[in-house]
Amino acid sequence: MKKYAVIVAGGSGKRMGNEIPKQFILLQGKPVLWHTLHAFLSTFGDIEIILVLPQANIKDGESIIQALDTKARITIIEGGATRFHSVRNGLAFVTEESVVFVHDGVRCLVTKELIQRCYEQALEKGSAIPAVTATDSIRIVNGDTTTVADRTNVRIIQTPQTFLSEWLLPAFTTSYDEGFTDEATVFETSGKGVCLIEGDYENIKITRPTDLLVAEKVLAERSALK
Amino acid sequence: MKKYAVIVAGGSGKRMGNEIPKQFILLQGKPVLWHTLHAFLSTFGDIEIILVLPQANIKDGESIIQALDTKARITIIEGGATRFHSVRNGLAFVTEESVVFVHDGVRCLVTKELIQRCYEQALEKGSAIPAVTATDSIRIVNGDTTTVADRTNVRIIQTPQTFLSEWLLPAFTTSYDEGFTDEATVFETSGKGVCLIEGDYENIKITRPTDLLVAEKVLAERSALK
Repeated sequence: MKKYAVIVAGGSGKRMGNEIPKQFILLQGKPVLWHTLHAFLSTFGDIEIILVLPQANIKDGESIIQALDTKARITIIEGGATRFHSVRNGLAFVTEESVVFVHDGVRCLVTKELIQRCYEQALEKGSAIPAVTATDSIRIVNGDTTTVADRTNVRIIQTPQTFLSEWLLPAFTTSYDEGFTDEATVFETSGKGVCLIEGDYENIKITRPTDLLVAEKVLAERSALK
Repeated sequence: MKKYAVIVAGGSGKRMGNEIPKQFILLQGKPVLWHTLHAFLSTFGDIEIILVLPQANIKDGESIIQALDTKARITIIEGGATRFHSVRNGLAFVTEESVVFVHDGVRCLVTKELIQRCYEQALEKGSAIPAVTATDSIRIVNGDTTTVADRTNVRIIQTPQTFLSEWLLPAFTTSYDEGFTDEATVFETSGKGVCLIEGDYENIKITRPTDLLVAEKVLAERSALK
């Protein structure tokens, strides 16, 4: 089936204490976003990518696409006020019945195996939300106190959140709600539940300086294994 | 006030796919556990340490203590059937009114700053449980479905979990319960609530091979800053 990936890279890098937005920081000599796009392009030769960027970084995005030297169709569009609006802008370019991946531009360690796994489950069940079980104890804050959660029931949610287009597009016609933290929460407003799938502990979101250390090291190890 | 640290290092390393238990894997040429002990010893010259190890690794623990070349009192004891039993065994050596740290042996990136912060809050409020806010979306499994949790209310719990001895020791006279996943959950059976404190994203628990990459890199950076 036709595949689209909406890659959302709208961050401004405030948590990194860095002038450069984190999606453009270099890892192994290439921008974070290059690695992310490369993962999808090398999994599916026929994938179409919609790259959502802040207005100020559209030229940077064009340079990355040139460096990828791919024949795949990659459309750059401007992000919206929130994640929901950015993704909705991107979904306007999904014009064929398809499997749609929505992915954080800064999750540059995503593997072919995980992308493939999400594709297959979305085809079969309509959705695939990669998740891993918490390693540490988890507490939930309730006002001034906290209660412990059963760790075996806590799932840390990742991307690519993957859906059949015929299910995802109608869900995104809903109006914006502050509770929309990801695509799964939007999808659920359609009345359908989402199906989780085993994620990957290495599929981290580059958020803090330590994450860059991890990513650099993981990419170096993978490159050595090739 | 007098300080004790109960360092629990009972893991067998199954998740690492490694023959060597993870607390003995070398980082920057020294065992994980060496780094952990060193962090406490360099924060407080007068701290007394109770190191809880599996029977099979007691000799390894003795070698690490020799390599630390410290005058601090370090007692090695054998672990129990569960974390609760191991810590309870350790607390038998807490004989003076004190602040007691209970720490995972494999959290070797713990900093002086965090240890000091836990000490001060435990002195003032009776307990200090380091925690960080989740970076990713979180879902809670309920049978076949999942519900999204408000991420801003989710806390990932770390160690050292730190308490006034006069509050912690009575709590540990309770009988074992499967819900005891850490010391905070035991402490709460006494009827007292625990006080969270800002943890540290770098204070990871060495669990998977990627964690070793992180730890190696973080220790190398810190060593370069000295």
